[in-house]
Amino acid sequence: MKVSKIGIVSRFDRQDALDMVKKIHDEFNSKVDIYLSPGTGERLKISSNLLPVYKMRDAGVQLIISVGGDGTALRNISKMKDPLPVLGINLGNLGFLVDVPPEDAIEDIEDVLKGFTYTERSRLSVSLGNKNLPDATNEIVLITARPAKILTFRISIDGTEIEDIRADGVVFATPTGSTAYAMSAGGPIVDPRVDASIIVPLAPFKLSARPLIIPGSSTINVEMIIPEKEAAVVIDGQHTYSMKENDIVTITKAQNPARFVSSSINGFYEKVQSKLA
Amino acid sequence: MKVSKIGIVSRFDRQDALDMVKKIHDEFNSKVDIYLSPGTGERLKISSNLLPVYKMRDAGVQLIISVGGDGTALRNISKMKDPLPVLGINLGNLGFLVDVPPEDAIEDIEDVLKGFTYTERSRLSVSLGNKNLPDATNEIVLITARPAKILTFRISIDGTEIEDIRADGVVFATPTGSTAYAMSAGGPIVDPRVDASIIVPLAPFKLSARPLIIPGSSTINVEMIIPEKEAAVVIDGQHTYSMKENDIVTITKAQNPARFVSSSINGFYEKVQSKLA
Amino acid sequence: MKVSKIGIVSRFDRQDALDMVKKIHDEFNSKVDIYLSPGTGERLKISSNLLPVYKMRDAGVQLIISVGGDGTALRNISKMKDPLPVLGINLGNLGFLVDVPPEDAIEDIEDVLKGFTYTERSRLSVSLGNKNLPDATNEIVLITARPAKILTFRISIDGTEIEDIRADGVVFATPTGSTAYAMSAGGPIVDPRVDASIIVPLAPFKLSARPLIIPGSSTINVEMIIPEKEAAVVIDGQHTYSMKENDIVTITKAQNPARFVSSSINGFYEKVQSKLA
Amino acid sequence: MKVSKIGIVSRFDRQDALDMVKKIHDEFNSKVDIYLSPGTGERLKISSNLLPVYKMRDAGVQLIISVGGDGTALRNISKMKDPLPVLGINLGNLGFLVDVPPEDAIEDIEDVLKGFTYTERSRLSVSLGNKNLPDATNEIVLITARPAKILTFRISIDGTEIEDIRADGVVFATPTGSTAYAMSAGGPIVDPRVDASIIVPLAPFKLSARPLIIPGSSTINVEMIIPEKEAAVVIDGQHTYSMKENDIVTITKAQNPARFVSSSINGFYEKVQSKLA
Repeated sequence: MKVSKIGIVSRFDRQDALDMVKKIHDEFNSKVDIYLSPGTGERLKISSNLLPVYKMRDAGVQLIISVGGDGTALRNISKMKDPLPVLGINLGNLGFLVDVPPEDAIEDIEDVLKGFTYTERSRLSVSLGNKNLPDATNEIVLITARPAKILTFRISIDGTEIEDIRADGVVFATPTGSTAYAMSAGGPIVDPRVDASIIVPLAPFKLSARPLIIPGSSTINVEMIIPEKEAAVVIDGQHTYSMKENDIVTITKAQNPARFVSSSINGFYEKVQSKLA
Repeated sequence: MKVSKIGIVSRFDRQDALDMVKKIHDEFNSKVDIYLSPGTGERLKISSNLLPVYKMRDAGVQLIISVGGDGTALRNISKMKDPLPVLGINLGNLGFLVDVPPEDAIEDIEDVLKGFTYTERSRLSVSLGNKNLPDATNEIVLITARPAKILTFRISIDGTEIEDIRADGVVFATPTGSTAYAMSAGGPIVDPRVDASIIVPLAPFKLSARPLIIPGSSTINVEMIIPEKEAAVVIDGQHTYSMKENDIVTITKAQNPARFVSSSINGFYEKVQSKLA
Repeated sequence: MKVSKIGIVSRFDRQDALDMVKKIHDEFNSKVDIYLSPGTGERLKISSNLLPVYKMRDAGVQLIISVGGDGTALRNISKMKDPLPVLGINLGNLGFLVDVPPEDAIEDIEDVLKGFTYTERSRLSVSLGNKNLPDATNEIVLITARPAKILTFRISIDGTEIEDIRADGVVFATPTGSTAYAMSAGGPIVDPRVDASIIVPLAPFKLSARPLIIPGSSTINVEMIIPEKEAAVVIDGQHTYSMKENDIVTITKAQNPARFVSSSINGFYEKVQSKLA
Repeated sequence: MKVSKIGIVSRFDRQDALDMVKKIHDEFNSKVDIYLSPGTGERLKISSNLLPVYKMRDAGVQLIISVGGDGTALRNISKMKDPLPVLGINLGNLGFLVDVPPEDAIEDIEDVLKGFTYTERSRLSVSLGNKNLPDATNEIVLITARPAKILTFRISIDGTEIEDIRADGVVFATPTGSTAYAMSAGGPIVDPRVDASIIVPLAPFKLSARPLIIPGSSTINVEMIIPEKEAAVVIDGQHTYSMKENDIVTITKAQNPARFVSSSINGFYEKVQSKLA
């Protein structure tokens, strides 16, 4: 299916990102309707067709071009309840989620506008007490808010309590997030075709604490059992919330997945190799 | 469904195992038909109803009682193309696969004979060149046959090559095996409900080599690319085969799973806790 | 040498700690001069012979009895420029530094008062910019002050820069601290007889980042190279300081070691076993 | 001091190694006395001044030029009771012990012949029962001789038993060896200025088993306590010996260190970076 409406989101704080948006806009403005996120539009002094990313689906936008790093893509996906497919243009550093290098941007977009396919990546939904937080594409981190103060986490998987974890924090990641923060914490690489979630303790007190792989459809409940301490909930490294005594965090598979436009180099194992080698 | 025919297999080399078989035989012989594996029968001087475990299904046996440790259960399961449900009686040390302690044996068997349910655990099928090897319930290890000689493994997952692994060996495990040898090698714990296989390098040369979780339905091909060295293929720590230059090892999900009779304490997370705490 | 003057320090916030101090005071007050830290004295309504721990050496105190956990001992040692020997009475949980259980306290103190030996454990001295911070008996942790924000540390050892470390934080530990937080972070156990310091990254971005063991006499300089982020310096889990852009942290061996009274069970390997087994 | 007598040792099985020896011989034969190891001499059809490396010190040789990789240098050092200083010429791949690239060989040797300094690196002495084995520059590995059969090692340090280690094997390394096999097994990097030995278990059964750093002067005794199994003792990856029931392995600091000629790029941290980055 030919594409007629696209959205563009980007970093605001780097000129090379804004230059790239401008270049894409100039190149394709006559061929398709282009919506810009307001922040990007303002900085480029473009005032027509500005729309927050969470309204783009309803406006008929078919895909989002994200200019920046993995963080830019993650932040914008988290704003969409039912995420549009994203094509990530990086700024010179290959990300796991943004694999089109700047020099290929125009040509790759040209191809995509003729029709595209996308892959779906499951996300995690998280609530803190009664409050729903943004869905996570990579991971949810529960972490001590006071450096070097160990916490005790009481975790249950589908109603079954596992052993309490005493640690600086705990990472709950999707397979997509297995190559991001969860990996620094010592987690395994998980092929995104596996329907699973990954639990990795951060600096656990007990040496036998291990990464744990559970079904993607499992419900995870987390409680802190040391009352006087504070923790933060950090989603995709982008959103931070405070967690207090008696706050229960519940994590389930999100209703809607993230979607990524399939482009030239997005084989999972090729990326693992080029990033980790 | 009431049980009318059972099989018993056991270690031969420990008197406490043979005593337990005798006790079970004496207790239940008048109530159900009992088949013994020939080795166990001989040592107990019982000569009727002897049958190799791989023929028990055809003889109408409904479940196998395995007396010994995890090794005894694994060895007997590997002999069955389509494994019967196994109830494991341990000899005082809780195993992951044999969770009935000796003092509960008679009572638990009594219960089970009134009717039982079982859980299925996927196995891995492995071929070496043209030869099919026994299915693995826990893991397949490819390992240098000469101590301390590093090997290079070229591995492909569903036809896609991943980065070559230089290591003493590589472990390919099921979720059931994730709490056995794969864990010593640094792998994560994988909930048996997750449909996945686990790849863990042993003492990898490259520090960035990581455990990898792939779909349970994937086809894994392994080739050694340093011709002059030798490796062994070890299945469930029970069966060892020699692997030479140009031998290709292919690993897929086995056609038939292992089956374990559900008994009192067989929650996965409870066992992880009692074994690893 | 017979002991004639002792000091007692303790937790204030647990009644069992205060009860133990009272018991020791009542038992030995007629035999030796006992100095109490003011906080402990107040809570016990004892008003004579109160003295801050840092003044006890000058008052002729020969050893300090610390009632509480490792934290209590660490906090009091950090207050002494030239630490007096410490005998640690725990409250039921064996610590690495406080190995006399409450039921043995009176008897062990009685023995010690007849004469005692002690072992010395090297400490680390740390400065932040121009400011000297308290010496560390266990470790100095540099850690992101904003959860889940990775930092870049530029570290030089005796003037030679090692590779930049991108991580949540870095631990600099003594051998004494090798069984504390450094171990949770993945560091090795270091026999306290080895003259060395231990550097362990926390959740490093690069998978090849490893614990590093350097000479105990080395000078370590640390600089953060990402200006906009903030880090905290945490000493022995007790003292926290803010670290900003351009602040340089310098770590050297402290002039004076910590000293621990040799008591019944203080073999290093026995403790490793009883704590970690 | 000007150099007047040198020795050359090399790999025999690679033509580029032999070519390099020939080139060095042709270049410097008129300026200094050159002794060749017999194997190398034969292959180059040079028949004068052939001498086994272990006799070179007595013949007045002042330094050894080793052409090949780390293995070649290790093998030749292990033949010398009191090792001569070694200058390692690599064949295109930087080794930790052989840091002169082929293109710099002639120039670097020219410099060295005018006078040189060297650094000493401690070695480990090992005996198996009553038999003295060659000293180890990198490490001694005790490892199961039957793939995937776990062993139990009873280890004492200076007469104090540490917890039994159940594992595939155990690595005992020098700081020099900390960047070789011990690192693949999960050990830390140890600055060669630290006077220490490193003990690292291979695939330990117990997850809490950790690398251990002990004084370089310690005496290590190792006993296997599962009688029916066999282990191998492997020294520097070059020499393999069989270890049986009741064989006790004793490891101490060797009387004489290895010696390496200081050349242009031999900073320890630079090498760690270029090899591991």
